[in-house]
Amino acid sequence: MTAMTPFFSDSDSVSAAAARAFERCDILAGFTEEPGRITRTFLSPPMHDVHRIVREWMEAVGLTVRVDAVGNIFGEAGAADLSVLLLGSHLDTIRNAGRYDGILGVLLAIEAAGIVLASDQALPFALHVVGFSEEEGVRFMPYIGSLAAAGAFDLAFLEQRDEAGKTMREAISEFGFDPAEVPAAAYPPGRLMGYTELHIEQGPRLEDSNRPVAAVDAIAGQSRMLMRVTGQAGHAGNCPMPLRRDALAGAAELILALETIALETPGLVATVGYIETRPNVSNVIAGEVTLSADIRHKDDGVRMAAVAELKREADRMAYARDLTFTIDRERGFAAVPMDTRLAAIMEASVEAVTGIVPPEEETALLTSGAGHDAAMIAAIAPVAMLFVRGLNGGLSHHPDEAVLPEDVETALRVLVHFIQKLAQI
Amino acid sequence: MTAMTPFFSDSDSVSAAAARAFERCDILAGFTEEPGRITRTFLSPPMHDVHRIVREWMEAVGLTVRVDAVGNIFGEAGAADLSVLLLGSHLDTIRNAGRYDGILGVLLAIEAAGIVLASDQALPFALHVVGFSEEEGVRFMPYIGSLAAAGAFDLAFLEQRDEAGKTMREAISEFGFDPAEVPAAAYPPGRLMGYTELHIEQGPRLEDSNRPVAAVDAIAGQSRMLMRVTGQAGHAGNCPMPLRRDALAGAAELILALETIALETPGLVATVGYIETRPNVSNVIAGEVTLSADIRHKDDGVRMAAVAELKREADRMAYARDLTFTIDRERGFAAVPMDTRLAAIMEASVEAVTGIVPPEEETALLTSGAGHDAAMIAAIAPVAMLFVRGLNGGLSHHPDEAVLPEDVETALRVLVHFIQKLAQI
Repeated sequence: MTAMTPFFSDSDSVSAAAARAFERCDILAGFTEEPGRITRTFLSPPMHDVHRIVREWMEAVGLTVRVDAVGNIFGEAGAADLSVLLLGSHLDTIRNAGRYDGILGVLLAIEAAGIVLASDQALPFALHVVGFSEEEGVRFMPYIGSLAAAGAFDLAFLEQRDEAGKTMREAISEFGFDPAEVPAAAYPPGRLMGYTELHIEQGPRLEDSNRPVAAVDAIAGQSRMLMRVTGQAGHAGNCPMPLRRDALAGAAELILALETIALETPGLVATVGYIETRPNVSNVIAGEVTLSADIRHKDDGVRMAAVAELKREADRMAYARDLTFTIDRERGFAAVPMDTRLAAIMEASVEAVTGIVPPEEETALLTSGAGHDAAMIAAIAPVAMLFVRGLNGGLSHHPDEAVLPEDVETALRVLVHFIQKLAQI
Repeated sequence: MTAMTPFFSDSDSVSAAAARAFERCDILAGFTEEPGRITRTFLSPPMHDVHRIVREWMEAVGLTVRVDAVGNIFGEAGAADLSVLLLGSHLDTIRNAGRYDGILGVLLAIEAAGIVLASDQALPFALHVVGFSEEEGVRFMPYIGSLAAAGAFDLAFLEQRDEAGKTMREAISEFGFDPAEVPAAAYPPGRLMGYTELHIEQGPRLEDSNRPVAAVDAIAGQSRMLMRVTGQAGHAGNCPMPLRRDALAGAAELILALETIALETPGLVATVGYIETRPNVSNVIAGEVTLSADIRHKDDGVRMAAVAELKREADRMAYARDLTFTIDRERGFAAVPMDTRLAAIMEASVEAVTGIVPPEEETALLTSGAGHDAAMIAAIAPVAMLFVRGLNGGLSHHPDEAVLPEDVETALRVLVHFIQKLAQI
């Protein structure tokens, strides 16, 4: 380690705290709906165990615990009239998940709070730690926990049904909560001075640049499209090339056109991950292809220009090949920039703890291509995020999701440094 | 109509015969395993009805009927010591078939034989009409009928099982035939002086060039490959473009490379009709793509050069993108040229009957991209084929398969003209 956190703790106790959080990820992984796999959807039975043990862990470091009506668990310290610095992430998982996505952010927030509280220094803000109940959206919808905390939970959401036909309202009641209390889960306006979320990167950039952690500059905006290319099915042997209207060849052009747009636009990522061909038989020319486009950038203008360029390329391709290009579905999500001041403090904490300073012309900050609870909380508070390096190219949403213990420790030091800086300002 | 067939018949009786064959396609369409759809696989129950009625139709024009042990039905005329001109096609269908594929060739062969026999002119050859029992291969394997007639039926084929677990041997016995008699279905060596098959084109070339019929120069050779492109799955938001190993983008390059090869090689047709992407989720970079290649040409050397070029392009692509390219399966089928002399006579008959003469530098002959029974019979006899225009781009293997009644009549006139020319030589 290259730096100390002199105000709050000795180095050994930070190391021990990081190791504890790392091991506790394994413990939480044992609370699952599916033996042998990690699966913990919104208010499913294993969340009772999670609440019980996270409550213990929060109380052990001196936090006062409350659980709200959507199942968010809070550990709180500090006077009720103080602004709140909220730290945390989410406790639910996808099906067959890894053990760090969300979880690590909650457990390191508990450890950071523990270190701060153990220092016996008076903070100019209250410190709350949250484990949001639901971010992934497997059972009903994403961001139930953070939407409720942000006061942005539409009560109509309660009527959504899971695969078994159960409404979210019923799920909440069965777990033991009162759906009528959901509005009370919202933080009062102005209460939060900031929200900070630590999360695994879920990408290869930190591993590729050999860095343990990085501050985030924005959660990218997203454009999602489902596109359709229609041609004419035909016999692979008896239709000469000039007479073909091959939907898959047209789709292939689209895939490469989108890739070219992304390669030529700094910071843009664009993906065709889904393709479905009809009839999808080796000796029949494809009559119709459906394919996805996923386009992300931290600058919504740049993203929308890329979408427009893709549509121009698609129309040009369709005209040249006598195909039909249509967009069956299109959705957009605006980018959520991190708070400039909090992100700068986080960036400075990363530099202070890691000693890694980026070259003059580059930024050390990463854009989050994935959505996070921070994007919901950004509606009511300044937000910052810290990414931790994931191994194997940042593999996530996969049982082999992995982080280095030493990176976990670095992340904890950065988090503590960040709180210290905020407290000094 | 632009020409007569003066030796054998008056024009009105040819028109009536063509109309009869056209209508009988509808009658045979009623003999099906699946009510509402045309499905007639190898020796399935409706083939009893087909044998009964085709026997009636053959006998009505003066042919002597025999059925062999694999279910081929023959109508024969002429002395046993004469060489045989065999005319026909197949009587089975795919599932949910059209009504002309195979069937039209058998029914027009019966009418052509009827016209020839009605003329009371002595032929220098015997005339046999065949309805092969199985060409499509739905139940067991393709070409059972023509392989048996060609003496190329391997008795080990009898142990193949259908989806219900029944062997071909059992299927033959249950239908009422003796599997031990299958070898006797073979024509003696040297018995056939020729085989002529009339078939719908199953492609758009005749419709596109506004021609009713065309002689065939060859049945194209085929290369079939199942290719795999392997990269690295990743998060669509968090993996920057330069760090991606996107298997679908690589596959898209392959699809376009194959298309380019085909466009630059006269007569080559090449198709990627099947593609399967994993995990095939819109927000995950594709980790692996499996895709087919179907490459056909009448010249095997040209085809193999195209396959080699595709592999070079694939290796270049894989190297540039840090992907892995592998070929999971590869099969080749040699081209089967039509007999030069018979094809020339067929071409001359087409010109004589239709009056359509191709421009100096062009050939009127079409290459068959699909396989046909003629390819099996080519092992024991000179073969020729006549294609009839299909409507709607030559749509086939589809219930909407369609031909024009006037094209059926033209085809019959060509067939009769062809027999007449052969008889005169």
